[in-house]
Amino acid sequence: MSRIVLGVEYDGSRYAGWQIQVGKATVQGELERALTNIAAQTVTVLCAGRTDAGVHALEQVVHFDCPVERDLRGWVMGGNSHLPDDIRITWAKPAVYDFHARYSAIARFYRYVILNRAMKSALLRDQATWCYQTLDAERMHRAAQHLLGEHDFSSFRAQSCQSVSPNRLMYFIDVVRDGDKVVIDLCANAFLHHMVRNIAGVLIDIGSGKQPEDWTLHLLGIKDRAQAASTAPPHGLHLGGVFYPERYGVPAHPVFLKLPKDAKRFD
Amino acid sequence: MSRIVLGVEYDGSRYAGWQIQVGKATVQGELERALTNIAAQTVTVLCAGRTDAGVHALEQVVHFDCPVERDLRGWVMGGNSHLPDDIRITWAKPAVYDFHARYSAIARFYRYVILNRAMKSALLRDQATWCYQTLDAERMHRAAQHLLGEHDFSSFRAQSCQSVSPNRLMYFIDVVRDGDKVVIDLCANAFLHHMVRNIAGVLIDIGSGKQPEDWTLHLLGIKDRAQAASTAPPHGLHLGGVFYPERYGVPAHPVFLKLPKDAKRFD
Repeated sequence: MSRIVLGVEYDGSRYAGWQIQVGKATVQGELERALTNIAAQTVTVLCAGRTDAGVHALEQVVHFDCPVERDLRGWVMGGNSHLPDDIRITWAKPAVYDFHARYSAIARFYRYVILNRAMKSALLRDQATWCYQTLDAERMHRAAQHLLGEHDFSSFRAQSCQSVSPNRLMYFIDVVRDGDKVVIDLCANAFLHHMVRNIAGVLIDIGSGKQPEDWTLHLLGIKDRAQAASTAPPHGLHLGGVFYPERYGVPAHPVFLKLPKDAKRFD
Repeated sequence: MSRIVLGVEYDGSRYAGWQIQVGKATVQGELERALTNIAAQTVTVLCAGRTDAGVHALEQVVHFDCPVERDLRGWVMGGNSHLPDDIRITWAKPAVYDFHARYSAIARFYRYVILNRAMKSALLRDQATWCYQTLDAERMHRAAQHLLGEHDFSSFRAQSCQSVSPNRLMYFIDVVRDGDKVVIDLCANAFLHHMVRNIAGVLIDIGSGKQPEDWTLHLLGIKDRAQAASTAPPHGLHLGGVFYPERYGVPAHPVFLKLPKDAKRFD
């Protein structure tokens, strides 16, 4: 039995999210179908972070166990030949026996992209959230710094969230303007359900001037989701990468160079 | 009768190109249908540069005449409400009577985007051309400089091209690497049919080392399309903007600041 780890990029537009659901197209469903084809027996995959309907991944990480031997190229090229072109396996590595895509991860990196101009875009319609009110990205960045460190993120957590603890450790949030786009990069040990989209919604209300700059601090304190902003739409959200201890040999996005040297799993 | 000029952005993936064709979805067809709806009578549009199937526009410019008065907001908001979301009118201006989207233009700006990495992309599959061979963008840039100025571009012209003259005036070609993308920006008074894609094909063969750096110079001299590279695919190509004399009041992309001050229509 060998354990394999894959990097997977996808355009979530056509999918009802990552997780398999009966009668719906899902990324997990497509991936398992393709890998089952290559393995010639049922393959079940586990991912680092389940994404909602319409959310994209630049680099989702998954692992699976398979009793048959295939060379790594076979999983990548063969897998891709059985996948629709909006899902691509970008690399495959052998994993050590105790590697787990979800439980071995130290940190996740998400990117939320806002198109900030008067008119909607034809080309970015499915990969950026449109906001016509002028946003002050520097104000959004300053507001976001209140969220760094370990906090109870109850004000940013979906009611449906099944996590035992509302606490998470936020490593960094950088908000930058790039022409008519405002890009929010976030890195935490893990995220609660809808946490990135709820933070994005709050930062948009701060950036447009609707709320004061220290609203993030206020919301952290009151621990009440009902008083925060609306959840920002899914299609602006991209899972950018997942960070693992070096011994697993999983390729790491350069953004993780910004993590503290002693960053480790948070139990 | 008033003449109106519009900026139009589109994702060309679903269309058989700009120009109306019976039984096929085209950008012109969709736009005329939407504007006809707003005008409550038949509207025919003329564009600055007809794009092929799969080619995109960040800013196509079109004009039309309409005997009914509508405020500019009506053409933009109303037009968009009748358009599919992969075509967006981004602005509308009143045009002076002698403005012509095609014949008044001084220069066109195109962008050709290449994704240069080992694996195809799910997210950029329709908006960048994939090339797995490592490209030397600086070498491509140097090679492209041979094409600046007025030349007979017969080696870069489709057989089907209906232009009377094979001569064009190239203002600039800039090739830059942006992470795993190689971006070619081109600006000329006008382009022959397939000219950008043929130049991109030649530059890719030079960037990968298959052809020498001065191959562009050689091809200009021999004026023979058959000896040049394959036409690069359409989906990497974006019409970026169109430049008009200032008196028309048409918004200009900042890239046109690089044009010489005396740039004018080339007859």
